[in-house]
Amino acid sequence: MTGATARRRGRPRREEAADTRDHILTAAREEFSEHGYEKTSVRGIAKAAGVDSALVHHYFGTKEQVFEAAVAVIFAPALNAPDALADAPPDDVGERLTRFFFGVWENPATRTPLLAIVRSALSNDTAAAVFRRLLASQLLRRIAGRLDLPDAELRAELAAAQLVGCAILRYVIRLEPLASADAEQIIARLAPVVQGHLTGP
Amino acid sequence: MTGATARRRGRPRREEAADTRDHILTAAREEFSEHGYEKTSVRGIAKAAGVDSALVHHYFGTKEQVFEAAVAVIFAPALNAPDALADAPPDDVGERLTRFFFGVWENPATRTPLLAIVRSALSNDTAAAVFRRLLASQLLRRIAGRLDLPDAELRAELAAAQLVGCAILRYVIRLEPLASADAEQIIARLAPVVQGHLTGP
Repeated sequence: MTGATARRRGRPRREEAADTRDHILTAAREEFSEHGYEKTSVRGIAKAAGVDSALVHHYFGTKEQVFEAAVAVIFAPALNAPDALADAPPDDVGERLTRFFFGVWENPATRTPLLAIVRSALSNDTAAAVFRRLLASQLLRRIAGRLDLPDAELRAELAAAQLVGCAILRYVIRLEPLASADAEQIIARLAPVVQGHLTGP
Repeated sequence: MTGATARRRGRPRREEAADTRDHILTAAREEFSEHGYEKTSVRGIAKAAGVDSALVHHYFGTKEQVFEAAVAVIFAPALNAPDALADAPPDDVGERLTRFFFGVWENPATRTPLLAIVRSALSNDTAAAVFRRLLASQLLRRIAGRLDLPDAELRAELAAAQLVGCAILRYVIRLEPLASADAEQIIARLAPVVQGHLTGP
């Protein structure tokens, strides 16, 4: 800390604090992406950020809370999905959402950290709870809010089940022919299913 | 080993060997179910079975091969799915498969070890490869074989994506309202989707 503070001498204190927080968050994102939830420690994050563990606790709290902050950053590209639906005609939400989903997953820059989060969520209960909160509050409830239907949340979740299941079999388990299939072919097959879940009878 | 051998004195050698193999396999199934692929060791399996590690290697080979044998046992109830379709009219395969799938997952006795395998497969590449081989050769290819369509394997995989995704969001991530929804309600929603993937246009 002393070195970083010295380098930034003369800058307003609040700005310095924001820099340190960002620096820790970047380190946390990299540590969780590389090692997963279980094998990452606050001490390891502090070491990667070049700060004392106490400072990580000061800015974020527990390991679970650092994870939540890191997941929110990693998950940010996916959180634009409800906006992608904002101007979609009702018959088009299935294709918009499916196309948006594979846009995020087909891009290695967004896929790699997402994969790490999903893997952590699937192998650790605390990580699963963080993922569940974020997925529900930031994504599914907002998508459900755009559907004017009484069972909108269940609809959004069943649509998510089709997309998430496909991501897992294609990018994690790498089942063939699914793993090598053209993304457009998959989008063409899944868009009507997602549409059916969201707006069907 | 000496104790076990002594207790079984007088029994044919081949039968003894089969017993020892079964005994190791049971221990392996329990160790992998409880600790997952990464945290289970051949030494731990040997200890749980009360035998020497060398004997585990003798009967099964590497840790990956013990895992494959254990997964095949755990996965056995799921492998009856293609038979459940054997006498189904073509318009009924979606519901039959969906109902079969949730029958296995709603039963805690079959769900608990399956969950452990799925979690291992999603967090470790070697475990993922074992799961992929078994899923492809024992389940999806056999289901695809019942569909007389050129893209039958991709169809079976997209149907599996809907079911597996739902299992993950319901039983692992435990998203609400999906996690508490009545199984019959979910089957009613997913059966037509699965039918569409398998036999639709």
